[in-house]
Amino acid sequence: MGRAFHGVFPYLVSPVDADGRVRDGVLARLCDDLIAAGVHGLTPLGSTGEFAYLSPAQKRRIVEVTIEAAAGRVPVVVGVAATTTADAVAQTREMERLGANGVLAILEAYFPLDDEAIHDYFAAVAGATALPVVLYTNPNFQRADLSLPVIDRLSRIANVRYLKDASTNTGRLLSIMERAEGRIEIFAASAHIPAAVMLIGGKGWMAGPACVAPRQSVALYDLCVARRWEEAMALQRRLWRLNQAFAKYNLAACIKGGLTLQGYDVGDPLAPQKPLSAQGREELSRALAELG
Amino acid sequence: MGRAFHGVFPYLVSPVDADGRVRDGVLARLCDDLIAAGVHGLTPLGSTGEFAYLSPAQKRRIVEVTIEAAAGRVPVVVGVAATTTADAVAQTREMERLGANGVLAILEAYFPLDDEAIHDYFAAVAGATALPVVLYTNPNFQRADLSLPVIDRLSRIANVRYLKDASTNTGRLLSIMERAEGRIEIFAASAHIPAAVMLIGGKGWMAGPACVAPRQSVALYDLCVARRWEEAMALQRRLWRLNQAFAKYNLAACIKGGLTLQGYDVGDPLAPQKPLSAQGREELSRALAELG
Amino acid sequence: MGRAFHGVFPYLVSPVDADGRVRDGVLARLCDDLIAAGVHGLTPLGSTGEFAYLSPAQKRRIVEVTIEAAAGRVPVVVGVAATTTADAVAQTREMERLGANGVLAILEAYFPLDDEAIHDYFAAVAGATALPVVLYTNPNFQRADLSLPVIDRLSRIANVRYLKDASTNTGRLLSIMERAEGRIEIFAASAHIPAAVMLIGGKGWMAGPACVAPRQSVALYDLCVARRWEEAMALQRRLWRLNQAFAKYNLAACIKGGLTLQGYDVGDPLAPQKPLSAQGREELSRALAELG
Amino acid sequence: MGRAFHGVFPYLVSPVDADGRVRDGVLARLCDDLIAAGVHGLTPLGSTGEFAYLSPAQKRRIVEVTIEAAAGRVPVVVGVAATTTADAVAQTREMERLGANGVLAILEAYFPLDDEAIHDYFAAVAGATALPVVLYTNPNFQRADLSLPVIDRLSRIANVRYLKDASTNTGRLLSIMERAEGRIEIFAASAHIPAAVMLIGGKGWMAGPACVAPRQSVALYDLCVARRWEEAMALQRRLWRLNQAFAKYNLAACIKGGLTLQGYDVGDPLAPQKPLSAQGREELSRALAELG
Repeated sequence: MGRAFHGVFPYLVSPVDADGRVRDGVLARLCDDLIAAGVHGLTPLGSTGEFAYLSPAQKRRIVEVTIEAAAGRVPVVVGVAATTTADAVAQTREMERLGANGVLAILEAYFPLDDEAIHDYFAAVAGATALPVVLYTNPNFQRADLSLPVIDRLSRIANVRYLKDASTNTGRLLSIMERAEGRIEIFAASAHIPAAVMLIGGKGWMAGPACVAPRQSVALYDLCVARRWEEAMALQRRLWRLNQAFAKYNLAACIKGGLTLQGYDVGDPLAPQKPLSAQGREELSRALAELG
Repeated sequence: MGRAFHGVFPYLVSPVDADGRVRDGVLARLCDDLIAAGVHGLTPLGSTGEFAYLSPAQKRRIVEVTIEAAAGRVPVVVGVAATTTADAVAQTREMERLGANGVLAILEAYFPLDDEAIHDYFAAVAGATALPVVLYTNPNFQRADLSLPVIDRLSRIANVRYLKDASTNTGRLLSIMERAEGRIEIFAASAHIPAAVMLIGGKGWMAGPACVAPRQSVALYDLCVARRWEEAMALQRRLWRLNQAFAKYNLAACIKGGLTLQGYDVGDPLAPQKPLSAQGREELSRALAELG
Repeated sequence: MGRAFHGVFPYLVSPVDADGRVRDGVLARLCDDLIAAGVHGLTPLGSTGEFAYLSPAQKRRIVEVTIEAAAGRVPVVVGVAATTTADAVAQTREMERLGANGVLAILEAYFPLDDEAIHDYFAAVAGATALPVVLYTNPNFQRADLSLPVIDRLSRIANVRYLKDASTNTGRLLSIMERAEGRIEIFAASAHIPAAVMLIGGKGWMAGPACVAPRQSVALYDLCVARRWEEAMALQRRLWRLNQAFAKYNLAACIKGGLTLQGYDVGDPLAPQKPLSAQGREELSRALAELG
Repeated sequence: MGRAFHGVFPYLVSPVDADGRVRDGVLARLCDDLIAAGVHGLTPLGSTGEFAYLSPAQKRRIVEVTIEAAAGRVPVVVGVAATTTADAVAQTREMERLGANGVLAILEAYFPLDDEAIHDYFAAVAGATALPVVLYTNPNFQRADLSLPVIDRLSRIANVRYLKDASTNTGRLLSIMERAEGRIEIFAASAHIPAAVMLIGGKGWMAGPACVAPRQSVALYDLCVARRWEEAMALQRRLWRLNQAFAKYNLAACIKGGLTLQGYDVGDPLAPQKPLSAQGREELSRALAELG
């Protein structure tokens, strides 16, 4: 794990019982199977992992189970999300203490924030840990997004080394690379075309769909790294049908629904979110079957 | 307190030390002074109260202090905000146990929700308590808003009796009144003109600015109830200058800044939010001086 | 017509045949009936009048017919809309030459514009005519909206005397009144509650629904002017049901559909816009019947 | 010109004098130089070409000059933009009569339109001509965008053969390719990374920046077609700096400013748009110099 983060990091789902208890067994088995399929890391508590819906105790338990299951075979990069700097710093320290290998830093804003405040939040997270920090930027779900000048400033902090972008704007990734060249590496998310992001210089992707198609995702990554672009695009197009199915439904419901179809009893997303509809299950089932 | 909620409910700020401790003394004194100024109720943990930034322990303490300070003189309507139904129900039960007189129900969504899911969340809150429930609708800050059909359905639950709207769309309030006639009463927020909302049938307003101008707010309410509209509008226009100052800055920073100017040591909004700027303080100071 | 503009100005529809010819007869009869019903002015080429869909020749003809039908009994305030300053100035001069009594100035932007550019456009329109100018502001349909500082600057031009706001934000109207006190008078649009705008100091409203309910609109205006607010609100609520029906459908399709129901053969909105659906016609028919 | 459209189609600017006269000479010289630089086609009356700001006579003149200058050496694909079906059909027929080789079909909506209405507009344009039609989709500037189901339906019309997407969502392009496989070819716009769009199966790009960097754009296209992706990306990154400069300013002002720096006296964008600022000119000048 001395190497820099790269490759396919599935966003893990958070299997939680109706009474709020984390389903340790199925989560551990999922982690184990994903590693066996060749993924390069695991990311609990991303948006697919319903970080916005879990209690502190549930978050802790999910991270403990993931780290124990990974057993040092692949890095575990844990989502840290908060509205206040104090909460983010406390979470970061706890995740480091639990054995995380990196932090995915997420800002949850209620009132709008200016660039200075946004910078301060992420800088405080980085300052609270020796772990590598992945900046998370998602203009669709966060009310406060990272502008290019803020990313540039943050990229000059030694342990701010990665950025994962969940917008649909692939050009923005190239602008970030141009701006923070060599100081920050880029990971794509499920709304981008991974092969296209790899072409322009990305290092991999952190995304929910990799939970249900880990082998194919790793194969796509390998083709990109080998610069076998035509084969990469042929596989990418087959995987894209899966992403399109996901894009139509609640992301957590979708990945949980897909895993259930594959025999992982991960349950439903937390209420009031609804489980995947019958139509969604059918569509997903077909997309998974086509993928082989 | 047998009467229905009506009149001016200031949204209380949440005074919290740098180390996270609630400043009991200044909060109790503010509550006492507001009641002395004639306000008709108190609302802790609204958006001005930074509900999105507080820990469960901080929320609990703020509600305890408020209820003790109110001492039954005016109703205390407590904000309950969550992303999951389970969390909202647990908070609601705790607030009732602490002695709240009503619940202001707020839905914090991360992934989009359909009408059915939104209905279920609010219905679960209402089902968890015997207290009157105030629906909170704020299309600007919430990702999941209450549609007219959902409001109509919810208004048929016995203890769903009020709605507070924080949009700027005053016509929407009249549409809600038309739709849920007699089953639900409307409160305005600081983005509406209170006198105009009273004219069309509103019962009062829940708003941050009433913290710093309680006497004038109560006087405005009394003029509206007495249907002395010309005098009401003259006072309304003076108060509006204050609202306009607030609209330009972070709401929590503004009300905390205004109270500090008035001698209440309520501190700053929680980081990474910034305190009111020097320019903001000056503008606010002028608006308060003009108001007398 | 020496008096300032005030009262109810129906936004006229633009009846156009399938082959593009303006239906003079029905337009003239509508104007005549509206004046007989007591309206205080006529506004051709507003958004309800499909200004964005008509050719220069069609626009000219509609204005000629309206002015001839009005025959000096009420002022005719004509919509002037353009993307370029040169086109707006040319239209303004032509409308003055045709006998218009005022200009409703609308800015159609494609690329975003800064405040300076927006100011220059409206100042050029005002400079091109001796007629009173009504500023039109509609953040929902225009890409370039009038900010408060720009409105303030424009209000200092002698013939910029009115503003019609088509947002839903009634508080903004009070802010404009505060800012441009005495230099500019405010007209509401159908998205505002006219009685509420009259309470806060408005001078009337320019709106499509007044085409199908002119008598009731004038009665509402008279009650507001007489400060008989309770009767005004009772009538306002009945009229609001009509506005709500309109808000659900394409505005031009709705007013044209309503007028057709009332025996004015004004035809359909210009394609690719669709005529009012059967469901819309039924809903509108019911709302009109209830209104009496 | 029997071959399908492919490669680099610069969006031509529309050089217009202060008195509204088209500057024939400089436009013809620009067309000639672009063709000499190897571009594969010319596109007058795109958004960069200020189609939204020109009169019918100005549009006609620009197309005449372009077609005459192209002299059959490369295809000329002309922008047709309207709010009404009748106007779009009339423009399409006129452009065909003037000698255009293809039509770029743009829908300008004022009131929102449903999918059926949007389909009908584009189908009517296609039905009015034997020329190939390029669908134009731009969710940022158009109020009515083409959904995937509508694109699918339109792709089954024989002469609807291309689509140019001006969003920033590159994944959407792959979804369109999946959906309309073989029936429709995709062109990128300046907000996408052309090399990434070529990788996923695009046929070229229609964009303003190609006006000021035609040789480098053609070189990039050739590298992509030759599947020399590493060299393509190296050139792409240098070109991207230019796109970033353009993204910060009014697009028409930017391209006109860049061409002026290169010795083409194309003048300013039409008022009330402002010319490129001094800072913008400096930034653009530096970006062009770096590009060589």
